[in-house]
Amino acid sequence: MKRFSFAVAVAAMGLIAVPALAQDFSGNVKARQGQFRILAINLGILGGMAKGEMPYDAATAQAAADSIAAVSMINQGPLWPQGSDNMSMEGTRALPAIWENQADLGAKWAALGEAAKGLQAAAGTDAAAIGAALGAVGGTCKACHDAYRAPES
Amino acid sequence: MKRFSFAVAVAAMGLIAVPALAQDFSGNVKARQGQFRILAINLGILGGMAKGEMPYDAATAQAAADSIAAVSMINQGPLWPQGSDNMSMEGTRALPAIWENQADLGAKWAALGEAAKGLQAAAGTDAAAIGAALGAVGGTCKACHDAYRAPES
Repeated sequence: MKRFSFAVAVAAMGLIAVPALAQDFSGNVKARQGQFRILAINLGILGGMAKGEMPYDAATAQAAADSIAAVSMINQGPLWPQGSDNMSMEGTRALPAIWENQADLGAKWAALGEAAKGLQAAAGTDAAAIGAALGAVGGTCKACHDAYRAPES
Repeated sequence: MKRFSFAVAVAAMGLIAVPALAQDFSGNVKARQGQFRILAINLGILGGMAKGEMPYDAATAQAAADSIAAVSMINQGPLWPQGSDNMSMEGTRALPAIWENQADLGAKWAALGEAAKGLQAAAGTDAAAIGAALGAVGGTCKACHDAYRAPES
């Protein structure tokens, strides 16, 4: 009986040529990084008000909170195809663990959505209320980054 | 009387060093381009179903339509600061006309939101319903691109 050869099996599956054959997921990475930029820009506005670096304005605060909530409603599946992790391509810090923990990812994204609702409810009150609600949102960001994002290199 | 020297005046105003002094709006550009990528990815899913290139699946279609609607709910103001047009910086095709036609921009973005609601309503029906609703969404994309986006160079 012929012994199993991993190299032959891999070659037969065409896996050796992965880098050349790999699909181009750079658009997916831009899409997901773009949504995080939108979160960051709007969190920056609300953080500025919470810290008193920017005058509190109810309409601006509400719009920023609404935008964060809107991003949290984007279904993440199509933005994260298999093979778009940081071991498979350049330009992303997304750890392969993301694709091994889909249920946890979903729960963490849902937690952002819940915290965003709290921010929407607080935005019209005052800067102090925003500060408290921002902490909850920031906690959901950090939970995901700690588990699923590679450190900056 | 000394003759006016354009070069001296420009130097006095510090304009020669504009590129170095300009604010960095690359994050804003990534944010807005990212949201358009999210639209494109989800329109691609729905377009694939409408053309029969991908089997119709109600849940996948609904999720894609919901994501498009979510993006349409992102407030655009903070993503488009003055000075982030294609005459002021690299990496964007955003025409300066955007900043001269804010009311029209708002109306065009609202039209996308309305068309996205139609897509949400159609997504659960069948591929033909999606096709019809997609045309309306595509029309709102084109209206904005024709008016406010420079051609690819």
